[in-house]
Amino acid sequence: MKSIDLKHPVTIALDAMGADNGPEVVVSAAVDAVAHHRYLSVDLVGDAVRLESLVPAAAERIRICPASEVVTMDDSPADAVRRKKNSSMRVAIERVKNGAAAACVSAGNTGALMATAKFVLKTLPGIKRPAILAELPTRRNPTYLLDVGANAECDADQLFQFAVMGSIVASQLSDSTSPSIALLNIGSDSQKGDGLIQEASALIEASGLNYVGFVEGNDLGQGNVDVVVTDGFTGNVALKTMEGTASLVSHFANHVFTRSWFSKLQGLVARRALNQLRTTLDPRGYNGASFVGLNGIVVKSHGGADEVAFGHAIQTALLEVSDNTPAAIDRWMKNEAA
Amino acid sequence: MKSIDLKHPVTIALDAMGADNGPEVVVSAAVDAVAHHRYLSVDLVGDAVRLESLVPAAAERIRICPASEVVTMDDSPADAVRRKKNSSMRVAIERVKNGAAAACVSAGNTGALMATAKFVLKTLPGIKRPAILAELPTRRNPTYLLDVGANAECDADQLFQFAVMGSIVASQLSDSTSPSIALLNIGSDSQKGDGLIQEASALIEASGLNYVGFVEGNDLGQGNVDVVVTDGFTGNVALKTMEGTASLVSHFANHVFTRSWFSKLQGLVARRALNQLRTTLDPRGYNGASFVGLNGIVVKSHGGADEVAFGHAIQTALLEVSDNTPAAIDRWMKNEAA
Repeated sequence: MKSIDLKHPVTIALDAMGADNGPEVVVSAAVDAVAHHRYLSVDLVGDAVRLESLVPAAAERIRICPASEVVTMDDSPADAVRRKKNSSMRVAIERVKNGAAAACVSAGNTGALMATAKFVLKTLPGIKRPAILAELPTRRNPTYLLDVGANAECDADQLFQFAVMGSIVASQLSDSTSPSIALLNIGSDSQKGDGLIQEASALIEASGLNYVGFVEGNDLGQGNVDVVVTDGFTGNVALKTMEGTASLVSHFANHVFTRSWFSKLQGLVARRALNQLRTTLDPRGYNGASFVGLNGIVVKSHGGADEVAFGHAIQTALLEVSDNTPAAIDRWMKNEAA
Repeated sequence: MKSIDLKHPVTIALDAMGADNGPEVVVSAAVDAVAHHRYLSVDLVGDAVRLESLVPAAAERIRICPASEVVTMDDSPADAVRRKKNSSMRVAIERVKNGAAAACVSAGNTGALMATAKFVLKTLPGIKRPAILAELPTRRNPTYLLDVGANAECDADQLFQFAVMGSIVASQLSDSTSPSIALLNIGSDSQKGDGLIQEASALIEASGLNYVGFVEGNDLGQGNVDVVVTDGFTGNVALKTMEGTASLVSHFANHVFTRSWFSKLQGLVARRALNQLRTTLDPRGYNGASFVGLNGIVVKSHGGADEVAFGHAIQTALLEVSDNTPAAIDRWMKNEAA
């Protein structure tokens, strides 16, 4: 991901109550972020009493915005929208809607966050369904995968719109001006896949996007393509399979370096290199999934994020603010209609 | 996987021409297998002149069966069936059909192998579609995933039959007598997923199988469940994503241990532990995907398999021969109909 140097004042709203380990993580990430960006202000949304006790007295540009409710992991998306109108998640998104904040970052319930964001911010004109875009670690530059869970089933038009939105966001988050786009399939040969995949492929091919055809699951970590498009069911399984496999390999690595006094000694000697390996694979460096296709910027942090990971999600939001992602997508849609 | 000690004479047919690196790999694996199993005979199917030059003169219980054609990676499944009636793949499967061999192992084109196997051997009565079952590495016992590519789209009945077949095969390949079965979904909560997933879940729940509900992509490497059921599109993406991620992590590991003279030294000291790690993750230990639901045993080896990996695919075939997988599935279907 690119680094970001804000040139103008920006305020973002953070759902302070969404993280699995409580508001401490979000408060720490907010304190770090305002220290790093002198033009950044943060609205911390949540339990005012608790937040006041956590925010350092000397902290500048951090404002506490009270919200009396919290969306839990057990709340259905519909319940979050209908019954929790004063949740920290809802109030944070409302601040984006009414212009008080330029973006919202939340580590809360993904389904509830998407439903609330759609309800409050609305989908951009012409966009059929918003999608969730995740950054994947690869051998080279990051690959952006969408949809990773908002739409279990998708038609060819939706997949085409995901390609457009993915291209726009990837060019904003990375250094690639014309990101390469691929469709996830079960064979790289152009004849593979069912009618829907073939239809989506033809739409993307005809669009003028930098389309490179099909890729398979094993291509996701190679970094040969900037954006991979798929439906939310497949994308969610692929993303979580990558996370699970990386954690499996770490488990085996820990195991071989601790099984005997000799291998423990080897592990000790190799500690610096092993730590570098952990840093390279650290999922905190990839945290922050963008909700794309909404009339406003919303970034979802992993629920179990620590302050470093949450900080990465904030950085994603700031890059989108800086390039005004919703306006760029809206422009593309209007040119398309013209 | 269980080890296997054959008690009676068994003949298997190997498609000697299917491996990416030529027949040498298959011949070496055959020589090793007959040396290891004194009741095993192997029919090597392919280019007789070439195979005669490769098989050691002293090799016992290896017979060369001539076949004049080879199915390539570019052949469509339909072309393989219609136009290559004397391919090594086809002749090997015919030997299972006519009772000369108890199973066939091929490293050739997966789509062509499935189409030829279905055409020659036929699907078992009552089975809607055969599936491909793959063994996954996990923290504990292996997990078997199906379908990994035979059927891109599946209805609830097919997913239910995959659960039945997966349960039967897993109990034959592993030490689990009542394998636990899960459905792959994008949330583990029982309300998640679309109508098809919910319907399949209800069918498996009502079946008397050891059904444990939904799992997600990150559960695939945990080893908490014996069999994971999904459609062939999602299963193929998940399997290849695991392979790609494991290779990505190995790449990073090699990188950190070679980036400076000091890290090279660390890598040298840690060599034994790193080699153990490679062995644990070695995909050759998981090679051999079972085609289930056919009236005969067919095992697909990875195209790039070496003799160790191809040997693992042979072992999978022998375990299925020993327990007569097709008969066990057929019995279950008949009891179900009764």
